[in-house]
Amino acid sequence: MIRVALDAMGGDHAPKAPVKGALLAVQELQEISISLVGQKELIEQELSRIKSEDFDDDNIHIVDAREIISGEDNPTQAIREKKDSSLVKAMNLLKDNQVEAVVSAGNTGAFMAGGLLKLGRLANIKRPALAPVFPAFDGNGTVVLDVGATMDPKPEHLKDFAIMGSVYAEKVLGRERPRVGLINVGEEAGKGNQLTKESYSLLETAPINFCGNVEARELLSGDFDVVVCEGFMGNVLLKFMEGIGKGLFGTMKDEFTADFKSKLGAWMLKPRMKSLKSRFDYNEYGGAPFLGVNGILVKSHGSSNETAIKNAIVRQVYHFVNNEVLTAFSQEIEKGVETDE
Amino acid sequence: MIRVALDAMGGDHAPKAPVKGALLAVQELQEISISLVGQKELIEQELSRIKSEDFDDDNIHIVDAREIISGEDNPTQAIREKKDSSLVKAMNLLKDNQVEAVVSAGNTGAFMAGGLLKLGRLANIKRPALAPVFPAFDGNGTVVLDVGATMDPKPEHLKDFAIMGSVYAEKVLGRERPRVGLINVGEEAGKGNQLTKESYSLLETAPINFCGNVEARELLSGDFDVVVCEGFMGNVLLKFMEGIGKGLFGTMKDEFTADFKSKLGAWMLKPRMKSLKSRFDYNEYGGAPFLGVNGILVKSHGSSNETAIKNAIVRQVYHFVNNEVLTAFSQEIEKGVETDE
Repeated sequence: MIRVALDAMGGDHAPKAPVKGALLAVQELQEISISLVGQKELIEQELSRIKSEDFDDDNIHIVDAREIISGEDNPTQAIREKKDSSLVKAMNLLKDNQVEAVVSAGNTGAFMAGGLLKLGRLANIKRPALAPVFPAFDGNGTVVLDVGATMDPKPEHLKDFAIMGSVYAEKVLGRERPRVGLINVGEEAGKGNQLTKESYSLLETAPINFCGNVEARELLSGDFDVVVCEGFMGNVLLKFMEGIGKGLFGTMKDEFTADFKSKLGAWMLKPRMKSLKSRFDYNEYGGAPFLGVNGILVKSHGSSNETAIKNAIVRQVYHFVNNEVLTAFSQEIEKGVETDE
Repeated sequence: MIRVALDAMGGDHAPKAPVKGALLAVQELQEISISLVGQKELIEQELSRIKSEDFDDDNIHIVDAREIISGEDNPTQAIREKKDSSLVKAMNLLKDNQVEAVVSAGNTGAFMAGGLLKLGRLANIKRPALAPVFPAFDGNGTVVLDVGATMDPKPEHLKDFAIMGSVYAEKVLGRERPRVGLINVGEEAGKGNQLTKESYSLLETAPINFCGNVEARELLSGDFDVVVCEGFMGNVLLKFMEGIGKGLFGTMKDEFTADFKSKLGAWMLKPRMKSLKSRFDYNEYGGAPFLGVNGILVKSHGSSNETAIKNAIVRQVYHFVNNEVLTAFSQEIEKGVETDE
């Protein structure tokens, strides 16, 4: 049985989305057991509302937690002080080996701080990385890491990110011989800033399928399975992409409702627009794993719906456990250390 | 008379776009005189083709240059070795005070290397910056600098970028009290990497209207006139934006031609799609100034058409000269130095 602690109070649609997502997950996979951590009466209310819809919930449990860590809370402070919060209690369940993984759609900073403070880092890994999948126009999406866990990494940290990203892409996302790239300002090896210049040669000797520099122009092409960068850069890229998507679809809406003819045309294109938007649906992968900590942690987007939460469990946690990904991280990182010597 | 040296051989549409752009510029502004630098016979051929269309060219001159610096050339090497190239000859005209400015749509790296090697830096400015205008969904666009001239800047360099960007936005783009921001991973002052943390307080005391951190999500919102970042970041963002635009419009084309109904809908939306695309038209501003060097240098996009070239001259060079922007840079930078003491 794979046991998951799910933060029932995290995210814009809590507790509804986590509760529904949990029920969908245990329906899809028999070997999943979920502890919904949060305010008991609210969770029960959601459960009773949904159970009338004939859900099976033998593998759903409730762990009461009275406090909530909000998006405005200071991450480290919240983890230290809000001991009865859903997130801290979920992390404690993992620390005490009551569960194999924690999933949350709540405060990202607190999620990462909680993971580091409660679980610590994996052996041999000096810096953690948050690793979401960026969508691809034509392909399966690209794991980008780091997007904000480590602001000022050193070249050897980027190497660790590349190794973990590669293992993750293979064992969780099912990519064969993942193609790993380094975000840079040009394709040639000597390009970039101090960090990318020094990282390039380390990546060349790492136990991965390193395919060289990636120009940001090609980042969403689907030509790479894994792309590494410093956390500051990844975070900015992620938000820039979100901003462009939101702005562009908003502008399209304005344009397409400007007059009757346009409205009619837009109505005829409705299924196509839906198909277009679905290519950028972050609910598909369910969330971003927080890699390098001593436990399986998956951070879902704040606006995750129940499908995202379900996918975080059945498409991420499930494969993490079954394919012993944390053990594989340590093994591959050790191989990387050996190639350095 | 404002004299401009125009690289007639640079860009995807050379020499046609530069020659046509030059003629459009001298038609629009009487006080402009242009030296078309490049292979004489090719320029004459283009001129004679267009002159039949009744263009006036009293203020157009040809400066013969036999060599061409291509996109594949190594920048510094090309400037040193291709002494008879259109770009080097144009830079020499500026160095010798034969012209007030150089405009080119050719190799960006060579353009920057040429500027630095031939003209040197402005007094008090330690690092140069390339400063294109990013489009805005709702507004006038935002000057982003640096996008690739200085890969690893120090905080004091970002401060110089902010001052130059602000002066440029005011005196060339006509913005009042330009709102200047710092690209960062959060809005609060303490956020970010080492560079942004240290730069924040310097920007607060600089002689500019500093409005704090900008999250990349808001970068295209038009809420800021000037945004500063390290060259590595700016270059990646610029290319990422280009890649998303290209990928998205390509994907839309695929979707919108999937069946008859969609094709009909797309046909009805054609004027709207055109209006949508025009918001991202980099030809509007004509090019990105290369700031911090001792001369007026404007780099047009490689795929610039004649309108872009014309705009680089009438919307950029013209205001640079008339509003004595280089002098203003030095004055404002000096003010910035005083506030530090």
